[in-house]
Amino acid sequence: MAFRLLKDEVARRLPAGRFAHVLRVAETAVILADRFGEDKEKAETAALLHDVAKAMPKEELRQIVEEEGDPARVLGYHHELWHGPAGAVISHKEFGITDADILAAVRFHTTGRAGMSGLEKLIFTADMIEPGRTFPGAEKLREEARHSLDAAVLACSAHNLQYLAGVRAAIHPDTLRCYNDSLL
Amino acid sequence: MAFRLLKDEVARRLPAGRFAHVLRVAETAVILADRFGEDKEKAETAALLHDVAKAMPKEELRQIVEEEGDPARVLGYHHELWHGPAGAVISHKEFGITDADILAAVRFHTTGRAGMSGLEKLIFTADMIEPGRTFPGAEKLREEARHSLDAAVLACSAHNLQYLAGVRAAIHPDTLRCYNDSLL
Repeated sequence: MAFRLLKDEVARRLPAGRFAHVLRVAETAVILADRFGEDKEKAETAALLHDVAKAMPKEELRQIVEEEGDPARVLGYHHELWHGPAGAVISHKEFGITDADILAAVRFHTTGRAGMSGLEKLIFTADMIEPGRTFPGAEKLREEARHSLDAAVLACSAHNLQYLAGVRAAIHPDTLRCYNDSLL
Repeated sequence: MAFRLLKDEVARRLPAGRFAHVLRVAETAVILADRFGEDKEKAETAALLHDVAKAMPKEELRQIVEEEGDPARVLGYHHELWHGPAGAVISHKEFGITDADILAAVRFHTTGRAGMSGLEKLIFTADMIEPGRTFPGAEKLREEARHSLDAAVLACSAHNLQYLAGVRAAIHPDTLRCYNDSLL
């Protein structure tokens, strides 16, 4: 599917505010790709698709994840974690994306994971530091992303752990694995 | 081994400051056992033994853990995590402790884990809230332990996650499992 059509299709599936976030993530992803030597087109495509399943009803998400989205990994956790795997399934089946790296970047963008590719790191980071993010500490994450993608991933995953523990939310093991892995 | 002899033996193996911490943990553990209906004698014994391996040289700890202390669980992590498993081995082999609950409380006291027994929760908590602990947030943990052991475990494990992520230290998966499990 041509990039322009893909964009229209994603826009159709998301509320305006969420689509605006997606566009900011895509812009940020392209900047980071340029900065850290990753493929800019792949970065833009993955960013465009990362939240494609975000507005779907919970039960529809569950069904997709159960059928093809590695249910054991996420269904025991908050449904906020289901749209990544579901988005990867949709990107593949409905949009014809076959690039495994793009699909992994969509699948794992919420938690991160150990052993991420450059593209995965980039989408994980861009999602957290796009200019619309104004949570306390966001600027520090942006600073890390100015000089090192690995330092940015470490700071983002540490932020996730601290934030989630602070609000007493369940934490996916991949969030911890992403953090521990990025210490090395 | 009689409690008095056990106490002398632990004292012999630890620097004075560490032994004073052990005695405060034991006092705290007895108070918590009384408060939450756990066995006071077992609580006191487990508390007395929890740091028995704390002052051992790293290489000696490694050898004990490799031989009998579930090496896969801890050897890939900071040696600060080795004294719990090593302490359980010493408690069993050298002090003749056979109570599985006491041995588990010693083994898992640093990280906690999912599915802890009452005694394990109690030692995990007492170690963090004994009156000598003065880190920022310690008083909040003590407050939780005034009314609920489960709330105390949750607060202590959340504190561990936040602290370790803040200083960018590796976090053992059992620390996360302890936290997630105590949310339920």
